[in-house]
Amino acid sequence: MSTTTPIPTPSIAPPDILRCASMELVVTDLAASREFYVDILGLVVTEEDENAIYLRAFEEFIHHNLVLRKGPVAAVAAFSYRVRTPEDVDVAEAYYRELGCRVERRSEGFAKGVGDSVRVEDPLGFPYEFFYAVEHVERLAWRYDLYGAGALVRLDHFNQVTPDVPRGRSYLEDLGFRVTEDIQDDQGVTYAAWMRRKSTVHDTALTGGNGPRMHHVAFSTHEKHNIIHICDKLGALRKSDTIERGPGRHGVSNAFYLYLRDPDGHRVEIYTQDYYTGDPDNPVVTWDVHDNQRRDWWGNPVVPSWYTEASFVLDLDGNPQKVVERDDPSEMAVTIGADGFSYTRKGDSDHGFKLGNTL
Amino acid sequence: MSTTTPIPTPSIAPPDILRCASMELVVTDLAASREFYVDILGLVVTEEDENAIYLRAFEEFIHHNLVLRKGPVAAVAAFSYRVRTPEDVDVAEAYYRELGCRVERRSEGFAKGVGDSVRVEDPLGFPYEFFYAVEHVERLAWRYDLYGAGALVRLDHFNQVTPDVPRGRSYLEDLGFRVTEDIQDDQGVTYAAWMRRKSTVHDTALTGGNGPRMHHVAFSTHEKHNIIHICDKLGALRKSDTIERGPGRHGVSNAFYLYLRDPDGHRVEIYTQDYYTGDPDNPVVTWDVHDNQRRDWWGNPVVPSWYTEASFVLDLDGNPQKVVERDDPSEMAVTIGADGFSYTRKGDSDHGFKLGNTL
Amino acid sequence: MSTTTPIPTPSIAPPDILRCASMELVVTDLAASREFYVDILGLVVTEEDENAIYLRAFEEFIHHNLVLRKGPVAAVAAFSYRVRTPEDVDVAEAYYRELGCRVERRSEGFAKGVGDSVRVEDPLGFPYEFFYAVEHVERLAWRYDLYGAGALVRLDHFNQVTPDVPRGRSYLEDLGFRVTEDIQDDQGVTYAAWMRRKSTVHDTALTGGNGPRMHHVAFSTHEKHNIIHICDKLGALRKSDTIERGPGRHGVSNAFYLYLRDPDGHRVEIYTQDYYTGDPDNPVVTWDVHDNQRRDWWGNPVVPSWYTEASFVLDLDGNPQKVVERDDPSEMAVTIGADGFSYTRKGDSDHGFKLGNTL
Amino acid sequence: MSTTTPIPTPSIAPPDILRCASMELVVTDLAASREFYVDILGLVVTEEDENAIYLRAFEEFIHHNLVLRKGPVAAVAAFSYRVRTPEDVDVAEAYYRELGCRVERRSEGFAKGVGDSVRVEDPLGFPYEFFYAVEHVERLAWRYDLYGAGALVRLDHFNQVTPDVPRGRSYLEDLGFRVTEDIQDDQGVTYAAWMRRKSTVHDTALTGGNGPRMHHVAFSTHEKHNIIHICDKLGALRKSDTIERGPGRHGVSNAFYLYLRDPDGHRVEIYTQDYYTGDPDNPVVTWDVHDNQRRDWWGNPVVPSWYTEASFVLDLDGNPQKVVERDDPSEMAVTIGADGFSYTRKGDSDHGFKLGNTL
Repeated sequence: MSTTTPIPTPSIAPPDILRCASMELVVTDLAASREFYVDILGLVVTEEDENAIYLRAFEEFIHHNLVLRKGPVAAVAAFSYRVRTPEDVDVAEAYYRELGCRVERRSEGFAKGVGDSVRVEDPLGFPYEFFYAVEHVERLAWRYDLYGAGALVRLDHFNQVTPDVPRGRSYLEDLGFRVTEDIQDDQGVTYAAWMRRKSTVHDTALTGGNGPRMHHVAFSTHEKHNIIHICDKLGALRKSDTIERGPGRHGVSNAFYLYLRDPDGHRVEIYTQDYYTGDPDNPVVTWDVHDNQRRDWWGNPVVPSWYTEASFVLDLDGNPQKVVERDDPSEMAVTIGADGFSYTRKGDSDHGFKLGNTL
Repeated sequence: MSTTTPIPTPSIAPPDILRCASMELVVTDLAASREFYVDILGLVVTEEDENAIYLRAFEEFIHHNLVLRKGPVAAVAAFSYRVRTPEDVDVAEAYYRELGCRVERRSEGFAKGVGDSVRVEDPLGFPYEFFYAVEHVERLAWRYDLYGAGALVRLDHFNQVTPDVPRGRSYLEDLGFRVTEDIQDDQGVTYAAWMRRKSTVHDTALTGGNGPRMHHVAFSTHEKHNIIHICDKLGALRKSDTIERGPGRHGVSNAFYLYLRDPDGHRVEIYTQDYYTGDPDNPVVTWDVHDNQRRDWWGNPVVPSWYTEASFVLDLDGNPQKVVERDDPSEMAVTIGADGFSYTRKGDSDHGFKLGNTL
Repeated sequence: MSTTTPIPTPSIAPPDILRCASMELVVTDLAASREFYVDILGLVVTEEDENAIYLRAFEEFIHHNLVLRKGPVAAVAAFSYRVRTPEDVDVAEAYYRELGCRVERRSEGFAKGVGDSVRVEDPLGFPYEFFYAVEHVERLAWRYDLYGAGALVRLDHFNQVTPDVPRGRSYLEDLGFRVTEDIQDDQGVTYAAWMRRKSTVHDTALTGGNGPRMHHVAFSTHEKHNIIHICDKLGALRKSDTIERGPGRHGVSNAFYLYLRDPDGHRVEIYTQDYYTGDPDNPVVTWDVHDNQRRDWWGNPVVPSWYTEASFVLDLDGNPQKVVERDDPSEMAVTIGADGFSYTRKGDSDHGFKLGNTL
Repeated sequence: MSTTTPIPTPSIAPPDILRCASMELVVTDLAASREFYVDILGLVVTEEDENAIYLRAFEEFIHHNLVLRKGPVAAVAAFSYRVRTPEDVDVAEAYYRELGCRVERRSEGFAKGVGDSVRVEDPLGFPYEFFYAVEHVERLAWRYDLYGAGALVRLDHFNQVTPDVPRGRSYLEDLGFRVTEDIQDDQGVTYAAWMRRKSTVHDTALTGGNGPRMHHVAFSTHEKHNIIHICDKLGALRKSDTIERGPGRHGVSNAFYLYLRDPDGHRVEIYTQDYYTGDPDNPVVTWDVHDNQRRDWWGNPVVPSWYTEASFVLDLDGNPQKVVERDDPSEMAVTIGADGFSYTRKGDSDHGFKLGNTL
């Protein structure tokens, strides 16, 4: 399928997606990844063997929220969504077949702990998975004896890089997602969009850029000090260079955030305290791309790597998807450097002393 | 309708309820209530006149979450739910008419800022309201210049006292609610049940007791220190005697809590950090009524007034509903005092030094 | 020495005490105590053998802040203060000899990691120790990889039960302590006094009651959520019955607090955020014993055991000191029950629903 | 006095300094400064008139911690320390007279609320003030009804820019200050030193650079979230460009920090949670200037303005002191850019994606 033609709306209703549920990451050094996700971030090991580790957050009751699978090239093998009923897996299969996508159905699942599933190469080139059947495990919400000071309690969202955000948005709206916030300019360019199924700001977001690539996967903590502890701990371990950006307060989503890079460079966000979005008329917030508080409410600079680097995603054969360049202007180009600009107060031309103004 | 016969399941599907959205409280001294809810708790005034004050939490975008209406007797005039579509108001009307309930429909709404609504005297005797049309107001989520140190960000839930919890639970399940947690004993008595529409532990709960009465209405903060600040502020104002119970950690819901009593004695909970419940197979947690950590995870005592006192609810003429006594054992009786018992560790007969053991 | 005659002021200047530095607790089950202080509270083991465990808080650089020593009877063997110079140990010895106290000097110290020390049976019957020489160990302040969610960072203070508070206060003032806060009534009875050397509210406090006994030893956390985590963890471990009182906000000291009881019943406070008191004219705060916010700013009840129970202290032979009864009225008697009263607002006779009013 | 010759040690003992107590800032727009310090930061106004505003933090009991005085040029008029006794003011006068410094004594004080004081042009060119007599005002520690979400509770420290740090350090050690931490390189250059009288990491620090200038004045909050709220509030007010650096965790001091710039460019730090330093053998921590976690434990970049910009200080006639250039290497030059380097792990040459590596 071309990456620029509009994606048709299937004739059938989409599967009823509950929420983003799990990501499968291919990692090149399983021990190094285990140290990062288990020893440092404190995710809970549900199950592991020599090839894969299945991890979950403290409040989760399904088998896992993250699979680390050993492989030759760091990439993302699946963005996995849970659907409302077993029949929704059938619907998902039919929906993507009608879209002409490559589809693979496995009644025994693609990962331990998960049953009947379908994986697709979606119209944007991402490996999307849909499942209902899943093994229940202990919800450790009350196990404060196991909580570390930076405990991760929920998988919150995915973030995907795609060249044409409106095209992707339209496809995801057909799939039942609703936009909660986006970033635009006054020329009509959309730079990013946040889209939800569960009643938070997003289950996934589309970030404009060369894609398909995975921008980040995000886990929630209860409070802001939990995120600060993760930074403090990384400092104590002399791994502060895994902190890519933050901590800070997002403009978009109003959440408190931190971005880390795992040993393979996969980006992980730690996130807390966005808002309820479950009403159908939930107001959409559109941010001006030149508003310097959109990405960081405090106006702190976004490091260039955050805009440019992302993880490969795999096709159903396990090969990295070809990355297509974005044609629209890049958010980085229009906001920083000689040709871009950002304002703290609309119409104000002050630049100030921040690093972001000097790049 | 009798209060003991089962409530029939209507032939039509129930309205699609989004969430608990607002409560209308009748208060006897509007100025005193304004001081409590606005000056102390910091709820935002959307609109007010000499007879009523419309308040909302910081992250809300609908007109209000609480109406304080001046009246002769402290009571609750409405438990108001938002439904997904305008047509769901029609459905609600038909649904309750089939149940034989008294129903009143007002296309102009019962409260400012709300449009077409239906109010009913529900089978349990509560004044339930359903609406979709509502005036949007500014979501103040980003207005940290207005946040106080104890800012309330969302209406979280209602809590209703009813004599026969299983009867009420069955009715609410028909209405589309799902149980997330409950308290039982090994004799099969249910003491309380938590029921949700949105993806939190509850939109409303049923507490076994003489009813129909309103046990409490709950607002959320972002973090625990916000709740502690409210206590500290009440101390500074020499109003610490409005703190009825807490702060503490609930066993049920795993949330951090505080119970206050407003100038009329209406109970208000401040609440933070329960967990996601949106999956259809979300595990139900059943607590043993004798588990001393069910109501307070730290085993701190529940003050008797919390079990026995609650607010009257009004019928559609504005008269207090007659209160019917509970036949089943009371949770207070079976857990404290000479005839009750509670344990920290099942099978352990230690009593310890806590006040709750001495009552 | 009689327990009622005034304690003379020695002719020589007192030793220059820096701070409360360590307590030596005799415990009857070393493994049970280790579980409590190390596994649950997370104190750091500097050194241990089969008879004793030496523990410190995360920001400490001296060898230990707590010694758990195995013994036949639970008691306190030493309240240990650090002095400014080696010569101050000589001064301390001379000072107490002039007071006629029993004194024991050991150049090799009484505990591992501590050098030249003097222990005394002080005029109030407490085993006070003074030392300067001490082994330095790593200050783990930056070791966030080792911090648990409820990390204890400093030893903050001792609290001693003595029958005659003014008599003890005068003695401690001679010793160089300064009163920061106290509780009195309008009959001139003093119920408690807080006294400091370092610039916090106290290094030790005197609580009126049958004594000499040890009321509690207190450790600090950085923030309030650390204390809440300790409660949550105790709940998860089904040890919530070790929580005796709190968490809450003190009136006196303005600190956030929690009281626990260790396996031998020794009381431990977890404490955070009192204020700077280092100026010589630091204002003394006197609280009315009938002010219901003095002990808990939120007016939550003080459990009777907190008033009545305390640990034995040992003489220099290791035998428990005889406990002398308090002649003055007890704080519990004058504030709760039929013969006592407490107010939220001075002059107000409201009682409210709190448990404390019903005892 | 030359700025390079050693400063002699006076023959008399120095005054007994308790703590940094107040700074007098000259501001060019009193209304703008009031908005910043009162409306935004929430400092408490003790007294004000058309020319000056006297402010204090919530836990303070002396008249003020900050004076904003209207003047033609933004500068610092006084670094004011409180001494232990009235006689220490005499000692301070004699001490500086012996040093050959210009000295001015005013029995009525230089600022409202303060009595007998001496101001000096110290050997480093800074306007130091010493006083004991001061008007007591209400300590608002318990007035949680007045606390905002980002409440400042104490003045914590000053920070001074001076060309020759070892020379300044020696002078301040003579004056009774003790070093707690410093930054050096392996060539023996000292870049900064932290020095204390009260038992915290510092009452003042010396930062190597062109001086005498004032680097910043710091106020404490209770917890980290208070600092985050200040950032969030500045975002809401569209004043995020007043955030110069942070929030972050310092390596030096281990405190959580934020740097703001007031309307005149005076730098203000918000600071919380350093550690107790009151023992005479408190371990000094020396940081390698190339350690990228020394200034920010998370390795986040220090913005160039933070190294280069600072406030003028006034002589006793109210004229700005001449700024002398630093001869030693600058910390900025040796750590960032083509000629400098910083490491996360000693010996590691990785640079990573942080902005600080790209400047």
